[in-house]
Amino acid sequence: MIVVADNMQITNRIIGKAVNEMNPGPIQEMAKKCEAAGAEMLDINSGPLSRDPEKKMAFLVESVQDVSDLPLLIDTANPRAIEAGLRTNRKTAIINGFSLEPAKLESILPLAKKFQADIIGYLLYPDSHVPADGAERLSVAVELYGEFQKAGIDPERLIIDPVVAPIAWPDGNFQNMEILSVLCQLPELLGFPVKTIAGLSNLTTGQGPGEKKRLLEKAYLPMLAASGLNMALLNIFHHETVSVASACNSLMSQKMFVYEEIRGEINPAFFC
Amino acid sequence: MIVVADNMQITNRIIGKAVNEMNPGPIQEMAKKCEAAGAEMLDINSGPLSRDPEKKMAFLVESVQDVSDLPLLIDTANPRAIEAGLRTNRKTAIINGFSLEPAKLESILPLAKKFQADIIGYLLYPDSHVPADGAERLSVAVELYGEFQKAGIDPERLIIDPVVAPIAWPDGNFQNMEILSVLCQLPELLGFPVKTIAGLSNLTTGQGPGEKKRLLEKAYLPMLAASGLNMALLNIFHHETVSVASACNSLMSQKMFVYEEIRGEINPAFFC
Repeated sequence: MIVVADNMQITNRIIGKAVNEMNPGPIQEMAKKCEAAGAEMLDINSGPLSRDPEKKMAFLVESVQDVSDLPLLIDTANPRAIEAGLRTNRKTAIINGFSLEPAKLESILPLAKKFQADIIGYLLYPDSHVPADGAERLSVAVELYGEFQKAGIDPERLIIDPVVAPIAWPDGNFQNMEILSVLCQLPELLGFPVKTIAGLSNLTTGQGPGEKKRLLEKAYLPMLAASGLNMALLNIFHHETVSVASACNSLMSQKMFVYEEIRGEINPAFFC
Repeated sequence: MIVVADNMQITNRIIGKAVNEMNPGPIQEMAKKCEAAGAEMLDINSGPLSRDPEKKMAFLVESVQDVSDLPLLIDTANPRAIEAGLRTNRKTAIINGFSLEPAKLESILPLAKKFQADIIGYLLYPDSHVPADGAERLSVAVELYGEFQKAGIDPERLIIDPVVAPIAWPDGNFQNMEILSVLCQLPELLGFPVKTIAGLSNLTTGQGPGEKKRLLEKAYLPMLAASGLNMALLNIFHHETVSVASACNSLMSQKMFVYEEIRGEINPAFFC
């Protein structure tokens, strides 16, 4: 399981200010801190970017890759900003992301082919509603993969995000347990070892005590890992959660266990 | 998932001394501490008990139940000590446990019927060897259940322990991932929602840094929980592990999530 930092967000006051002032310093400091905290990839979430979206995403990507070689997730709903980010990127970039929403199928999905980039596909309905259960998620996954094939993109470029539900939702627990089952079933359903990603911060969105939120992250992450999750998008400054991710990798490694080796390799699900 | 303390062990110097001196104080103090730390059941491990096994187990049970109403696991390989413990017990007791070992089938299994007690069955071969993989464990489970039926005991009294492997074993990781799959498959295989227990302290038996050992416990426990484990036997003074168990219950509860409700109900596996 690869750990992806979700900290580089324009909604972060410091990052937002730095982007507005076109000042790379605070952005680069954040990138270095994320890497030091164990990030193996960085998600760059530029938000809605109402003004100059292309310029701002390009600036973010440029600033980050001047100080870090980590692969970047170009995270915005604005296709022009994605394209600007991909053009600026000189290393590995992943598009985050598309869904069955017609506008995204039309203008974001083709960028994966054009730039030969991996792309994250959300298990959401065309109107962005969350499927009601695991079966509906699997059916959306089949449809998503169908669009992928129609677009002529290599299946290995698809990374599926089952969309973790906030536990504050009335059916949040149910949804999140369904997601474990979905992660287990996806490879057999689609007929290849499709990659998966989940946003752990979603779990505890909303009001709630910080300590218990982190406790829930630490409990849910190993469940996701054992279900075969490949990439965990999370707050990289939740150091204990990052350590738990590392422990999961150690436990799931096919090499003999050694305490010294804290980083493990990516593994398939073990109990599906 | 119910949390069972494995701390009441005769190998604990204080407990060993108290038993030898027939002094209930330190035993009762330990029982109260375990309960305060969140134990929902207490395992009373009297070890081999070379001298006066019956008297010593009876003394342990008597001492504990004078200060605690928690259900007790009568944990010894000595059938006479088990029987003495069960006779002394006035509350709920669980026999821990039997296996396909002929002596245990003959002298421990029948005690479950005689005393109308739940009994833990280990997925081990008759010579106490650990099965090589998940498939072998499942086949042992079928045989174990067969012996159970032959003995005329209510299936609901069976609690299966898949036997967590120390990660220090060359194939420890493999075995422990197989166990997740075994936990998922047992209910369907046996045709009823068979209860399960796992000893988490086994995971990190042997040399190793304490902090990393606890980290591995915290990572493996949610995997077990999501696989449907009903009872976790653990060091109840590993407070963070106990909190993670509680968080697992909250995440798997079918009630709407509330941060205040730290204790959840027992749940079936969600992704099997």
